[in-house]
Amino acid sequence: MTVHHFTPTIYHRTMGSHAPVLHIAPGDSVITTTVDAWGLDASEQKATEGGNPMTGPFYIDGAEVGDTLVVYLDHLAPSRATGWGRPRLATNVVNPDEVASLPEQNEILRWVLERERGTASLRDPLGKLGHFTLPLNPMLGCFGVAAMDGQAISTATSAEHGGNMDYNGFVAGTTVYFPVFAPGALFHLGDGHAAQGDGEVCGTGIETSFEVKFTVDVLKGVRSRWPRGENKDYIFTVGNARPLDQAMQHATTEMLAWLQQRYGYSLVEANVLIGYGVEYDLGNMFDPAYTMVCKLPKRLLET
Amino acid sequence: MTVHHFTPTIYHRTMGSHAPVLHIAPGDSVITTTVDAWGLDASEQKATEGGNPMTGPFYIDGAEVGDTLVVYLDHLAPSRATGWGRPRLATNVVNPDEVASLPEQNEILRWVLERERGTASLRDPLGKLGHFTLPLNPMLGCFGVAAMDGQAISTATSAEHGGNMDYNGFVAGTTVYFPVFAPGALFHLGDGHAAQGDGEVCGTGIETSFEVKFTVDVLKGVRSRWPRGENKDYIFTVGNARPLDQAMQHATTEMLAWLQQRYGYSLVEANVLIGYGVEYDLGNMFDPAYTMVCKLPKRLLET
Amino acid sequence: MTVHHFTPTIYHRTMGSHAPVLHIAPGDSVITTTVDAWGLDASEQKATEGGNPMTGPFYIDGAEVGDTLVVYLDHLAPSRATGWGRPRLATNVVNPDEVASLPEQNEILRWVLERERGTASLRDPLGKLGHFTLPLNPMLGCFGVAAMDGQAISTATSAEHGGNMDYNGFVAGTTVYFPVFAPGALFHLGDGHAAQGDGEVCGTGIETSFEVKFTVDVLKGVRSRWPRGENKDYIFTVGNARPLDQAMQHATTEMLAWLQQRYGYSLVEANVLIGYGVEYDLGNMFDPAYTMVCKLPKRLLET
Amino acid sequence: MTVHHFTPTIYHRTMGSHAPVLHIAPGDSVITTTVDAWGLDASEQKATEGGNPMTGPFYIDGAEVGDTLVVYLDHLAPSRATGWGRPRLATNVVNPDEVASLPEQNEILRWVLERERGTASLRDPLGKLGHFTLPLNPMLGCFGVAAMDGQAISTATSAEHGGNMDYNGFVAGTTVYFPVFAPGALFHLGDGHAAQGDGEVCGTGIETSFEVKFTVDVLKGVRSRWPRGENKDYIFTVGNARPLDQAMQHATTEMLAWLQQRYGYSLVEANVLIGYGVEYDLGNMFDPAYTMVCKLPKRLLET
Repeated sequence: MTVHHFTPTIYHRTMGSHAPVLHIAPGDSVITTTVDAWGLDASEQKATEGGNPMTGPFYIDGAEVGDTLVVYLDHLAPSRATGWGRPRLATNVVNPDEVASLPEQNEILRWVLERERGTASLRDPLGKLGHFTLPLNPMLGCFGVAAMDGQAISTATSAEHGGNMDYNGFVAGTTVYFPVFAPGALFHLGDGHAAQGDGEVCGTGIETSFEVKFTVDVLKGVRSRWPRGENKDYIFTVGNARPLDQAMQHATTEMLAWLQQRYGYSLVEANVLIGYGVEYDLGNMFDPAYTMVCKLPKRLLET
Repeated sequence: MTVHHFTPTIYHRTMGSHAPVLHIAPGDSVITTTVDAWGLDASEQKATEGGNPMTGPFYIDGAEVGDTLVVYLDHLAPSRATGWGRPRLATNVVNPDEVASLPEQNEILRWVLERERGTASLRDPLGKLGHFTLPLNPMLGCFGVAAMDGQAISTATSAEHGGNMDYNGFVAGTTVYFPVFAPGALFHLGDGHAAQGDGEVCGTGIETSFEVKFTVDVLKGVRSRWPRGENKDYIFTVGNARPLDQAMQHATTEMLAWLQQRYGYSLVEANVLIGYGVEYDLGNMFDPAYTMVCKLPKRLLET
Repeated sequence: MTVHHFTPTIYHRTMGSHAPVLHIAPGDSVITTTVDAWGLDASEQKATEGGNPMTGPFYIDGAEVGDTLVVYLDHLAPSRATGWGRPRLATNVVNPDEVASLPEQNEILRWVLERERGTASLRDPLGKLGHFTLPLNPMLGCFGVAAMDGQAISTATSAEHGGNMDYNGFVAGTTVYFPVFAPGALFHLGDGHAAQGDGEVCGTGIETSFEVKFTVDVLKGVRSRWPRGENKDYIFTVGNARPLDQAMQHATTEMLAWLQQRYGYSLVEANVLIGYGVEYDLGNMFDPAYTMVCKLPKRLLET
Repeated sequence: MTVHHFTPTIYHRTMGSHAPVLHIAPGDSVITTTVDAWGLDASEQKATEGGNPMTGPFYIDGAEVGDTLVVYLDHLAPSRATGWGRPRLATNVVNPDEVASLPEQNEILRWVLERERGTASLRDPLGKLGHFTLPLNPMLGCFGVAAMDGQAISTATSAEHGGNMDYNGFVAGTTVYFPVFAPGALFHLGDGHAAQGDGEVCGTGIETSFEVKFTVDVLKGVRSRWPRGENKDYIFTVGNARPLDQAMQHATTEMLAWLQQRYGYSLVEANVLIGYGVEYDLGNMFDPAYTMVCKLPKRLLET
């Protein structure tokens, strides 16, 4: 149950079988930092090239292909008082005929992050919006394990191993499960967002560097196929694909499997639980693979 | 400001320029009933053929093409103590390779509705689920106006005029806006669900007959293109199409227009509001056209 | 075996249960005309409003719901020496990020049709393309029967009943089969294209008015679900939906059914025939519903 | 202008920056072999694990990021007299509701390849199909260069770098162009099909080992984004993505760029050429990424 303090010096822009930066044991925690999507650190210095650079990977001792890695997101917080993001909706979230009507200007929006007040505000007032203010909701945009079948997958996108899911439900207090596709699982993390709208429809959240604490565990012999998670109120499964339809199918199919595997529901019972109790969140509809999240309220599972 | 009591005798399975059953004025309310998707009424008698039969259409005096019809959903409640639904996930919401593994049995589930307790429960216990119980959340699955361009569109599907959107946010207390595509708008309603999971992923909600009270108004000269709505906490827009991606694009594009039209935000401000403040709901992913809902919290609009 | 000469005076912009303009018997032929998508006739006079106005519907005596209507396209030819079309790719056929880079100008291209030479040429020279010349390939863009379930569907789109499929394989010499969804089938036709690229990717073919001869028959008790066709070399089935994936699934599923129904292949044999012998054409990827065509060479069916 | 004879001993199941097996110069040819998708060689011996194992990669001297690699497919032929494939349509090419009706049996079909006669025939007669016989059409299912941005992408799928495109137009006599994403381009090849239906809709072609001769060249400073190709009659571009719509958008956008880049057409001219002259082929609709091919007849480019 060691708590490791890890300061990253190298970063990866793919999620694959890179040399581990640290070996940790199930039950261990890691306190570390992540740079923002451009590679800027807590001092707003360029620590590495941009493109969702990842801290890690961390090798979890004993994690083998076919197991499930557990990651508790203990603490997530911006490590600086500034964030940035795009001001314009992505071209793929509006009707094609409206794309040419999107704003011409696309200069970066600057945000001020106030951790004590729990807010993110526009640094420069924007017309009627003024210093538009949102609650802080620090989340990891991109994290996961080495990709399946020996692949190295860009941190621009996501798949079974996690990756750039950009789901605003990945906040502190969440437990996340990843299928293990390589020895040691090789956990990568980065791309912190101080807050983000559903779908990451402007192509960014409020991008910033993070301080992170996480704790790992390994479920030996527990097979999963897609990322899973839970928080106080929900269990959820995550599908990453295009179009949204397929992402949704992956998430739903994974929930069907999990309900039977973890809770012992029969196939029919699992169908009924999902059929009448399910909720869906839109993770992102911007990245090469989109993300849909299939959720079940825990209260329905206590009956 | 008349309150009309209307008892339907004929029903329609398309939404088009059918002869109106009643002329009403802006400001008027209607108390009426709807049969369930099979055409069963409050006595569980077959009042008409199945296939989402609609009560109406109601001709709203003064509503013309290019206006927007306002419908306040004043009251929605099951008119009987029973409901039914499918027990199996639809084939299009799981991975194609898993379709053949869905349960073989597909007999209808029977639900008991208790209005006083506010619950829907399985009539017959189902394994570990027992008399699985959900909160009542009475909603209209299918409603809207005559379809655009002189079409008559099946109540199995949806489009700009509304229709079979199967969105569980269409509950009492919601104001819904429809573009007017025919003189008098021709409002149709039906397909009540006592409760429904997101996405209507088993192909039904808890289907039952309803008692309904609604009030109408007309926004003269206010153009809309897709259904819009609002409740205490949110304004929202609705896109109906396949795949989900396109439904989402329609909803987002409509929100972009509405923010400028109704609130006077600039194009850039509307982009930023959606980009960082948006939430999405999945209406249905079962019907021929899927439904995505783009929501903005009203608190963000008060800044 | 009557040959009817029919001169249209009214036109429809939906395909539904409109009053028939003529009753004809199985085996009968009709010689008639169609106006172009803007409603312009052989004299380039506006005969009716634009929006793919249809000649018809023709009531085929004895055609009942559950039968299949047969339409032989005996003769299709432009009825004037001019055509028009758009010069710019549609916004939905390029990457969303490239939409804003499409040409600004979108004035209509004018084409000169020379029936004797069998060519369509740009009236006004266009840079390096000069009087760009294509072979004439006269085809019907929009035709079919009354839509299913009592619907009236816009001639902007397509579905099981046919409609605006914009497939350049619907040329003279082709036999087309439609499921009958209303008494008399109610055959509509229009939207002639002197030539058209695959996918109708600029949103038009070379649009012009047509002279048409067709002959009808009825296959009593032969159920079909989607349009089917055949020519000298191929049998084919047509799926109309969005996205292309679903259009393709409809076409493939219909071919699977037809091979068993018409030729008596077993299910496995039909799978193998399609699996190794199939070809696909892209009808349109512009209209609200896209069109994919599943083709099998007749030579493979003769073994 | 060396002709290299290369006998593979190792194989890769991802396309990335693996150690080159051979350095070759622009203008050089390579005579080599590929194993089938299961890793079986010309003697039907298991040479390596299955999963589209690739011969290579070949390092092309002087090829740098931002260049375009040219590969002439000089010779492609089965290296043995046997092939295999699946007998059943994939679950994603039929309507979801029909998936459960696909044949239960899914044993592998065995094919006999006769190079002299140019045919592939079922080894065991299958009902009415007997020894169903198709013309040989040897093609490479999976080939391309190291994936972009330092990724290693599974040979089960495809992207900008090529990969498992499963397009039956990649036959001898075709010139293929790939964007160079890594020093030396790193050309991989494998997954030969003796013949294949459009779309690879049963999930395989007629899978077999190949003898291959190819010749390479490098277009210095010529940027491409997606695979391109040409044969005697056509130039074509290839998009790989899901859904088909996006694959089609990629292919069309790449053609728009190529027409301007290679032939000097203006943007408007390129739009008109595609708009009226384009043809599309369906590569595959089975793999994780689907493949659409945008083709222009060379005769249209000679005007």
